[in-house]
Amino acid sequence: MNHETITPLYWQDEALVLLDQRRLPGEERWLHYTDVAGVVTAIREMVVRGAPAIGIAGAYGMVFAAEAAWRSAGADWRRQWQADVQALRHARPTAVNLAWAIDLMERFAAGLTGAPQAAMLGEARRLHEADLAANHRMGQLGAALIDANATVMTHCNAGALATAGHGTALGVIRDAHAAGRIARVFATETRPWLQGARLTSWELSRSGVPVQLITDGSAAHVMRTRGVSWVIVGADRVAANGDVANKIGTYGLAIAARAHGARVMVVAPRSTIDLATASGDDIEIEERAGEEITHIGGQRYAPAAVTAFNPVFDVTPAHLVDALVTEIGVLERPNRETLARLLAAAD
Amino acid sequence: MNHETITPLYWQDEALVLLDQRRLPGEERWLHYTDVAGVVTAIREMVVRGAPAIGIAGAYGMVFAAEAAWRSAGADWRRQWQADVQALRHARPTAVNLAWAIDLMERFAAGLTGAPQAAMLGEARRLHEADLAANHRMGQLGAALIDANATVMTHCNAGALATAGHGTALGVIRDAHAAGRIARVFATETRPWLQGARLTSWELSRSGVPVQLITDGSAAHVMRTRGVSWVIVGADRVAANGDVANKIGTYGLAIAARAHGARVMVVAPRSTIDLATASGDDIEIEERAGEEITHIGGQRYAPAAVTAFNPVFDVTPAHLVDALVTEIGVLERPNRETLARLLAAAD
Repeated sequence: MNHETITPLYWQDEALVLLDQRRLPGEERWLHYTDVAGVVTAIREMVVRGAPAIGIAGAYGMVFAAEAAWRSAGADWRRQWQADVQALRHARPTAVNLAWAIDLMERFAAGLTGAPQAAMLGEARRLHEADLAANHRMGQLGAALIDANATVMTHCNAGALATAGHGTALGVIRDAHAAGRIARVFATETRPWLQGARLTSWELSRSGVPVQLITDGSAAHVMRTRGVSWVIVGADRVAANGDVANKIGTYGLAIAARAHGARVMVVAPRSTIDLATASGDDIEIEERAGEEITHIGGQRYAPAAVTAFNPVFDVTPAHLVDALVTEIGVLERPNRETLARLLAAAD
Repeated sequence: MNHETITPLYWQDEALVLLDQRRLPGEERWLHYTDVAGVVTAIREMVVRGAPAIGIAGAYGMVFAAEAAWRSAGADWRRQWQADVQALRHARPTAVNLAWAIDLMERFAAGLTGAPQAAMLGEARRLHEADLAANHRMGQLGAALIDANATVMTHCNAGALATAGHGTALGVIRDAHAAGRIARVFATETRPWLQGARLTSWELSRSGVPVQLITDGSAAHVMRTRGVSWVIVGADRVAANGDVANKIGTYGLAIAARAHGARVMVVAPRSTIDLATASGDDIEIEERAGEEITHIGGQRYAPAAVTAFNPVFDVTPAHLVDALVTEIGVLERPNRETLARLLAAAD
């Protein structure tokens, strides 16, 4: 794997092949999946993570669902597959890209006749390729907003590893760096999964982008003392009013950014925008096991008697978002009206 | 050790005995020190940490310095000991309590005649006991500010382990809990050293205070969704204008608190207030090795090519401090004038 081809997943010989992101950067392990149950577990256990990437993995999971239903029920296959479809749709709750991809594949399936596998695979591949193209488009649109000699901050991993490739937030940073505008990137380590330490710093250093790792708690101090011009992040869901659900910690960064005159750029494909979710208050925030906080690397750090509260996303209100970059256009300070217009113009 | 007697250090048989806080809560290891070099290393390597506790450790270190100088130079001992005094004073830069304790011991030494050890030890013990008494006084003053059924947040460890006992921020929380006013405490884990996970959650659970651990990045989300009324922290230095240096992450919490109507209480003994430091901009912020971030528990998480920026304190401007609690009184929104008046009244 070289830096031009960082990708978290591909299809080969009737299998979905996922890079096990829990092992990075120490080990590059690829796991092969050939059924729905495997894909659901891989998504839930974060073998694959990142909103667009789990959407693509879900789309390939729908190929397995169709194939299994066809094998057991023939032409009645669409009466058989609902349990699998629901399992895929609900493997993780917060990122809407997963449900979006499942819905898209289900609508596509409705028009099929005969054995569905080849057509379903073709549609999953189309969605996969469209995500890559969207990232390159967002990279250009977002990079155009960044002034010369910029110090930027990013959180979690909204990179090639979270998408079909190139990345959303990191696609913008890569393209801005290629254009000579990036002086330095501060990557927050992003507890508890350390996606910043393990994935973002790995991606950026491989791409030759100057990156320094910081603890999540250092962000406000770094903004105050190092002059950050943009905080650039991805998103797991953008509500109809422009509120943004993203990795836990994003909201605190956005508050600190506003206090320091740093701007917040959210980079996410159109599939992340969910008009069916009125506002951030309506987004289900996934809470994972407290052991993800009390233990690191299999070792317990907190006393056995102590529990942890582990929400893994938070909501940044639209008024703290200075720019929403999608492949169909850029919105400054998005709101219900401008978001609706953007989507209407693109449809 | 039961919860009435949590203490990070004591004097026994001509040795300073320190609880190795790097091993907690998994292991309770006590290390014995009998010379200045040992005490300096223990402070620098964080066997003992917490601004008041390192001040007390430094005071006992001055007993060793006096003893060694007397042994080698007799009555001329105060001409011999400056290298040791400086080594102790500068073992760590940000917490002023260390320099304050060294200065106090040096002034005390100036008035001595004959062999200094017993008198120096008496003075160190006096300082040690005064810190404990100050914490109990601050606990009462701070607890009086807290309304019934309060959800509070604390950062790092400003507890018994950071002081002679009882704690500054945790002293307030303990006393408010004893008065029946604490519904729940959220303790931030406090990367990179995890003092919240390892020390604060351990102290509070032993004291029967309901505590939940959160990642540092979760704080703003918890404030928005769980109704935090006070963020209660210690301090490493309070400048003459009321700016507060404390553990990295405090500043971001204070910004988030203001955005959510949570109040910020800084609890610190009079010895933390440094009128010789005009403002937060004049406080030296210690930067430690990047490996404290890239590695956890001896295991590397970030790629080898990536460096980390590791400032371990930050500065919270006075206007974000709602209450400064000291043993000589409480100031709301401290500023240069009210701080000067408070100190003048107490001196």
